[in-house]
Amino acid sequence: MNKNIFFKGEGPFLLNNLFDNLDKKKIKIFDIKNLKEATKDDLTFLESANYVSFAKSTKASSCITTEKLKIYLPKSCEPVIVTNVLFVLCKIAKKFYPNADIDFPDLSLKKPKKSFYSKVKFGNNVLLGKKCKIGKNTIIGSNTVIEQNVTIGDNCVIGSQVVIRNSLIGNNVVIQDGSKIGLKGFGFIPLKGKNLRFPHIGKVMIKDNAEIGANCTIDRGSMNDTIIGENTFLDNQVHVAHNIQIGKNCMIAGQVGFAGSTTIGDNVSIGGQAGVSGHLKIGKNVKIGGGSGVVKDIEDGAVVMGYPAIPLKEFIRSIKK
Amino acid sequence: MNKNIFFKGEGPFLLNNLFDNLDKKKIKIFDIKNLKEATKDDLTFLESANYVSFAKSTKASSCITTEKLKIYLPKSCEPVIVTNVLFVLCKIAKKFYPNADIDFPDLSLKKPKKSFYSKVKFGNNVLLGKKCKIGKNTIIGSNTVIEQNVTIGDNCVIGSQVVIRNSLIGNNVVIQDGSKIGLKGFGFIPLKGKNLRFPHIGKVMIKDNAEIGANCTIDRGSMNDTIIGENTFLDNQVHVAHNIQIGKNCMIAGQVGFAGSTTIGDNVSIGGQAGVSGHLKIGKNVKIGGGSGVVKDIEDGAVVMGYPAIPLKEFIRSIKK
Amino acid sequence: MNKNIFFKGEGPFLLNNLFDNLDKKKIKIFDIKNLKEATKDDLTFLESANYVSFAKSTKASSCITTEKLKIYLPKSCEPVIVTNVLFVLCKIAKKFYPNADIDFPDLSLKKPKKSFYSKVKFGNNVLLGKKCKIGKNTIIGSNTVIEQNVTIGDNCVIGSQVVIRNSLIGNNVVIQDGSKIGLKGFGFIPLKGKNLRFPHIGKVMIKDNAEIGANCTIDRGSMNDTIIGENTFLDNQVHVAHNIQIGKNCMIAGQVGFAGSTTIGDNVSIGGQAGVSGHLKIGKNVKIGGGSGVVKDIEDGAVVMGYPAIPLKEFIRSIKK
Repeated sequence: MNKNIFFKGEGPFLLNNLFDNLDKKKIKIFDIKNLKEATKDDLTFLESANYVSFAKSTKASSCITTEKLKIYLPKSCEPVIVTNVLFVLCKIAKKFYPNADIDFPDLSLKKPKKSFYSKVKFGNNVLLGKKCKIGKNTIIGSNTVIEQNVTIGDNCVIGSQVVIRNSLIGNNVVIQDGSKIGLKGFGFIPLKGKNLRFPHIGKVMIKDNAEIGANCTIDRGSMNDTIIGENTFLDNQVHVAHNIQIGKNCMIAGQVGFAGSTTIGDNVSIGGQAGVSGHLKIGKNVKIGGGSGVVKDIEDGAVVMGYPAIPLKEFIRSIKK
Repeated sequence: MNKNIFFKGEGPFLLNNLFDNLDKKKIKIFDIKNLKEATKDDLTFLESANYVSFAKSTKASSCITTEKLKIYLPKSCEPVIVTNVLFVLCKIAKKFYPNADIDFPDLSLKKPKKSFYSKVKFGNNVLLGKKCKIGKNTIIGSNTVIEQNVTIGDNCVIGSQVVIRNSLIGNNVVIQDGSKIGLKGFGFIPLKGKNLRFPHIGKVMIKDNAEIGANCTIDRGSMNDTIIGENTFLDNQVHVAHNIQIGKNCMIAGQVGFAGSTTIGDNVSIGGQAGVSGHLKIGKNVKIGGGSGVVKDIEDGAVVMGYPAIPLKEFIRSIKK
Repeated sequence: MNKNIFFKGEGPFLLNNLFDNLDKKKIKIFDIKNLKEATKDDLTFLESANYVSFAKSTKASSCITTEKLKIYLPKSCEPVIVTNVLFVLCKIAKKFYPNADIDFPDLSLKKPKKSFYSKVKFGNNVLLGKKCKIGKNTIIGSNTVIEQNVTIGDNCVIGSQVVIRNSLIGNNVVIQDGSKIGLKGFGFIPLKGKNLRFPHIGKVMIKDNAEIGANCTIDRGSMNDTIIGENTFLDNQVHVAHNIQIGKNCMIAGQVGFAGSTTIGDNVSIGGQAGVSGHLKIGKNVKIGGGSGVVKDIEDGAVVMGYPAIPLKEFIRSIKK
């Protein structure tokens, strides 16, 4: 069944109605999900050998993939063979979720009913969408917009002029003024004249005790979620792209930027203005120097610096030359 | 005649009233424009040999320039010889446009009249200046400010907490939450104690199908316009300085910054956090790697990376040493 | 006596009540201040040999420090010996200022009384806290939030969707749309599961004729103030961390970032996207190239570029290799 909290899906569809050139038995598809989260009711996708381990154990009943990658799917999963997985995925995802590729502003916003949110403190002109849940002792600053179905935990402090949509916020979370959380990411198939935007049906999850600085942007995931781990602190003007997953107890300094789909382990510290490329795996206890450009995976405990980032000792040696 | 949509000009002035030490026939100056756009009613300026080709064909009746550069002007154009072209231009531009050097907030803002904008959907507390034009099926998010005379096309989606001034926005344009479009650029003559701000009488033009991410800043031009081309997408926290002209179908990733007056060709892709210096010409089909610092012109089709940016192959070789 | 304008202190405390293991005479502590500003009523702190010159002439009656550093204190100043000065300082500062480590939004905000601010021009939905002082001919844009006790001088132009708290703004200051001024900095003692936030009891001071671009963030100081000097101009998306002190007549281009506690001399120009590390001393008349990463002190008049920044001549030589 389709259980997306933030986007109403259009399914179910029959697999052979989704793909014209497919001569298959009538598999009913309720939703479209990544390899790990898909159930037997879902269609999934495998576009890269990086995800073979998830492919092998996927529970999806069907999978958009290539001739080359289909061998990694279990027998229970019907492959749908295409040339460009992401292009086809994008088109199919738009059938399921026609309104997730552009952030239409929530027009159901209203000033909060004091009776309903009796344990929340609101500044002036706070606007809430339908069915927002906000925990006790949470404070929301003036002119902040919280769109429909967002959940915010207890004891949170949300600043002024913040926008939150498509997000689940834990307890004791601080979000400072001007940050924009849960917007669609920068994902599209480039086409001359009119790009094809990728639906973003994931959400943002900010875990307990995390802090987000001022004027940050944290995009929601496309098919996955974007996650800020417990007790992880972000300074001002940090940009977190779609599908980024940051572990616990991390320290991310000002103006750091993450490209999409990278995972960051626990206890990682990143200096100001560093950039981390997409689709990387940064281990735990890693230290990344300010201004670095990380373009490769980093193993646990490494200390790196430079553009591109290299072990700190090598970096120091290189600048002494 | 003076046709600036956004700034009321103070002209016409007589040329020999504008320049005390000038012993000239009585040329009437209606406006001040760049070499290319000036007509016989306008004063123009030539401060650098980079613009000689425009100088030769300018239609302006007079031109602020130097002894050295005056030879490039056509006979129809009276040279006004000065030592520091930009300083004199700044002073004269302020006579024509005394209110274009500081962004005085528009105090004519009102909530939109539903009857006048019957085909537009508004969030809460949207504020519009006088004479804004907004096309059909466009949606404007909550707390957004659109100042006087701004035009927005059909089918646009403008997020919450956006500010737009001095801008012409095409059709099917997306602007995400928190972006500030059309503000004055960072242009001034540095003077101890009190800098002399440059009037910014240009505008921002965002062409059809373009997308601007969240918390971006796009400054309007000083004497030219700032242009974002058709189907060009900008990610979050991108900074576009005054007079930048970006072509069609470009992809500009998060936190990229452009210094002023650079032109970018069509189909250019720029990775996250890259910076592009001012007054450059970046060709079409160029790829600029994330984190790069571009300090020179780039020819069509080049792929560059590094700080300063060099051809990708050289960059890869250099980091293997 | 405690004279903090923005934070109500909980003192006075007796020194031997603040520190259990202290067997001392009954020194009464009214406030906690840095070495330079402390009076005989205050407790201060000395955590690094960098501040020895201030230590020698401090007027504080007591000082949190280490066994090794205590020798630099005058006889009039009772040392409190600890292992981790900042950790203990943080705990003690929280006793004095329990509400300065998180930016609780000001819930006293109201629309301005026209009678009280008769010489100020306001856009729509401007929100002011208690006891704000705003000078004559100042204009405040729509949806801007100015929290309690903030002072703004004469002839200022404050844009839309700005937030200002804990700040003293001079005359003729321009602050553009979306900037967030006076928020707490990124200062905390990292502790697994729940970081210990540092109280930020300093303020932001923006001096006469300064200009702040759009979507900037300027954090207030922790124990010191953050200062933007007279006639210093910041472009868009600049991040100024806590305790930064920038001199007069500086030009700071777009997306520059400063880590905490660095001082910048007069007449310094910094190119776009440059980053300056924490706790540095940048001299006067320094020029820092765009994209540079400054990790060391820079002497007066130097011209530097690179990552890490080196003298410009060396940088040019290094890229020609």
